[in-house]
Formats: sequence, structure tokens, C-alpha cells
Amino acid sequence: MNDSSKPASALSPYSFEPIALVESPYKEKFGTPRQPGLVSESRGVIVLRDDINPDSLEGLSDYSHVWAMFVFHENQAIREGKRSVKTKVHPPRLEGKAVGVFATRSPHRPNAIGLSLLAIEKIEGRRIHVRGLDLIDGTPILDIKPYLPSVEAITDAKEGWSGPLSSKSVEVSWSEEALQTLAAHPELTEKKTAIEKILELDIRPVAYRGTAENPDPYTDVYGFRYEDWNVVFRMLPDKKAVIERLEPWNQRTTTQTRPSNR
Amino acid sequence: MNDSSKPASALSPYSFEPIALVESPYKEKFGTPRQPGLVSESRGVIVLRDDINPDSLEGLSDYSHVWAMFVFHENQAIREGKRSVKTKVHPPRLEGKAVGVFATRSPHRPNAIGLSLLAIEKIEGRRIHVRGLDLIDGTPILDIKPYLPSVEAITDAKEGWSGPLSSKSVEVSWSEEALQTLAAHPELTEKKTAIEKILELDIRPVAYRGTAENPDPYTDVYGFRYEDWNVVFRMLPDKKAVIERLEPWNQRTTTQTRPSNR
Repeated sequence: MNDSSKPASALSPYSFEPIALVESPYKEKFGTPRQPGLVSESRGVIVLRDDINPDSLEGLSDYSHVWAMFVFHENQAIREGKRSVKTKVHPPRLEGKAVGVFATRSPHRPNAIGLSLLAIEKIEGRRIHVRGLDLIDGTPILDIKPYLPSVEAITDAKEGWSGPLSSKSVEVSWSEEALQTLAAHPELTEKKTAIEKILELDIRPVAYRGTAENPDPYTDVYGFRYEDWNVVFRMLPDKKAVIERLEPWNQRTTTQTRPSNR
Repeated sequence: MNDSSKPASALSPYSFEPIALVESPYKEKFGTPRQPGLVSESRGVIVLRDDINPDSLEGLSDYSHVWAMFVFHENQAIREGKRSVKTKVHPPRLEGKAVGVFATRSPHRPNAIGLSLLAIEKIEGRRIHVRGLDLIDGTPILDIKPYLPSVEAITDAKEGWSGPLSSKSVEVSWSEEALQTLAAHPELTEKKTAIEKILELDIRPVAYRGTAENPDPYTDVYGFRYEDWNVVFRMLPDKKAVIERLEPWNQRTTTQTRPSNR
């Protein structure tokens, strides 16, 4: 091996300027799916910077899926210009167990870059309309690349701890009041499935999922934002959730929109 | 949409320090496969920086494949600290036709970040041994992430121009002299298939593949480096190549190791 491949303890940094930003119904981390494709109904747009020629997208619409390489810009570390030094992380799925950060897709990684596989709906000028979004509004995009099923769809690949979600998802119901709001606002109808799927994924931070001694400490009413709506819900025992009401975000009545430890 | 999602023409850059470097049999761009997995025999190692705790890899060996996010560090642009402003590129596969840079995996993109799916062979300490490598020795790695077949193996995804390679690959043969060198060096035996596969992929730059009027201007003898060997080959008409000889890299006799326009 030549000298250039010796792993120094410090390597020169590289600087990258985002090429696009995301327009998303998700306005904050709480309530945003933790993986792409989980809520296929959630739509968004990747908008190229206005100084990038839209011809650079020519040919992309012949592909059904696109990789988005993005910055976890809401990370505490990256907001403060620092880098995460976590060796292990606690993925929500593992309910307390730790795993090496590079065996996860956690945002808390040395370089806070994420990778998301999205379905292309249509491309108009500088706007790539996508489905299955798991990115927050305003997420900076570093690169987009076509998904190549001929080399990247490896069906017999072995998956570690992150395998398919167990069937035990949260059972979601709607209150009478919430159903009345749905009925009164036709534009909400198409969001109903997305809102249900978001809650089914159990958006609670691990610390709020309860323990054997204290099964479910998370009984307050909370809200998460989806587009311009505040979805107010309450967790019930045995992984059930009820959507109590839907209210316009700018008239929200929940003071806490998310558990405070997140 | 809130203000933060408006695509400005300039967005604040983010700086990332590589977390690892690649040890690879490929020492230069010429002869390096253009996609991962094409030469499954080509092995390499991703070596974590020595100040990164190897426990950060715990759990990764339960996965069969890993994503490597890397910097195209040999790009002219990135070496000069600039950024590519190409709107369209000419992928070798399209033999002259241009396509939008974001519909390709070309290195000549605004942010010279690559994405490579590699098979994990074993993990020892800070060293991830991989197969199917398409990266040059010394490539800086920004991030590694587990491959998640449950969400990332989309077999019915639609692929554009980059679909499976046509059957018309280069037919490779060995000269008597080259076969004698193979026989005399047992350590070369296991590299034979890799070397053949590299040449089968047609490593010639597009400009050297000839035109209808001038079918094949690329008749000189060239060498490409594989590990510490210089593989000396000549292209023959009708997509045939003959490996003329194998010589230790430090005793190479080819003055030109690659076409000059590349």
C-alpha cells in the first residue's frame, strides 16, 4: 500500500455547497418518518438552486427512483458547527440497546450526511416532485443521483438489526371531533392516510415508550405538525393512539408540541 | 412553504472531514471499474481513521453490504478546490450522447461525492474488507452506512439509460508471454479473472473507441496498473483485446499508461 492510503488521524476537510433545498410537509423532527418510503403518501419537492441549469436533470425522469444525499441540518452538532463523536447510538427500534453508529443510519454520525431513496413523481423545471419523503422542510441537498436497480437492488442482501419493522405498530383511531374536522376540510382528506401512517410508526422517543415498571409515561397530549396542521394526539396503553383533534398550526392549542427530551 | 425552503442561488457550505481511506488494487483512474460490483473479484479495505473508535462499526458485520460515500478526489476540479459547472456529461456507455449530470453517477458533478455499494467480506478492528470495489487507492471516505435491502432493494424500479450493460463487451485473450508470467507468479493467479473483467468493460475513453470512418484509432500498446503490476494490452478491431504481458509496475516498459486525453 502506498503512503496515501495510511489513515491519518486528521484528513483535510472538503467543503460542499448544497445544490437544492427540500419542500416538505414535515416542519420539525417530531413526526417525521425515520426512513424514506415508510409513508409513501408523503409528498415533497426537491428544488434546485436557481443558478443551476435545469438541463442538468435531463434524463432523470426515465428513472423511477432517486437518491438524495442531504445534510441533517437540524442536528444540534451541525447547527453549532461541531461534529458528533458518538461511537454508539440507540436506534428507536432497538428500544434502548446500543449499536455502532456506522451500523445505523442515525443522524448523529461524524459527518452528518444522510441518504434517502425517493420515488420520482414528476420533474418540472428545477423541481423534482417525490414521494415517500422522510426529510424536513428546508433540508439542504448535497447531491441527487439516479437509483440503479441493476446494481443496487440486491434482494438477497443480509440485513442486520434494522430489518423489516415488526408487525406491532401503533393502532391509530380518530376522535369524533377530529373526524368532523376532516369532513369539513376536503384538503385534509388526502392527508388522512399519511397522518395515520406517521403515528403508526410510533413517533415517541425511546424514553417515552415506558418500561416494565412504568409501562407508559407518555400520556400527555402532544401535537406534531404536518403541513399547516397541528395533529393533536394522545397515547393510550398497549400501543394505541387516538387523534384528538386537527387544528390549523397558527391556532394551535398545544403548548408542548413534542416531548421535552428530544 | 416557509422562507427556509426557498432555493437561494447561494447556500452556506458544509465542511466534512473524511472518516476513512480506501486501500485498493486500483492505483489510477484508467482501468478502474466505473461502477461497484462489476468486478466482484476486486478486493479492498476501508480503513477508519485511527482516532475513530472501532466500536463504531459494531453490528455492521451483520449486514452483507455497505454504502461508501466518498470524494472523487482525483477530479481536476476538486484538486484545484473548484466545483464542476457541467450541466451535461457524456457517459462512456452512451458513446457520445450527453445527458444531464444528475441523471448520471459521473464524477463531474457540482459536489464531487460518490456513492458505492460494496460487499462486506469481513471487519477486523478499523478495517472493513470489501469486494466489488470501484474506488482508487487513497479515496477519502466521508461516511459508511449499512445497506437496507428491506427499503433499498426495489427490483421493479425503472432504470434509464444506465440499464444493464449490453452483451457486447470486449473479448479478452492472453498472449503466450502473459500466460507464462501468470504461471510463474502464483500470486497472480487469483488476479487473472479480475484483470480480464476490467478489460471486458472496455476501459477506453469514448474518444478512443473509434467512429464509423475511423473504426479504432486506439491501436497503441497501453498499460493499466492493477496492484503492483502493469497490465500491458492492445486493442484489436471488433472489440477484442489481447493482454500482451504483465510486468512489475516498478519495471514497466510502457511510457504511456493511458490515452492522453483522459
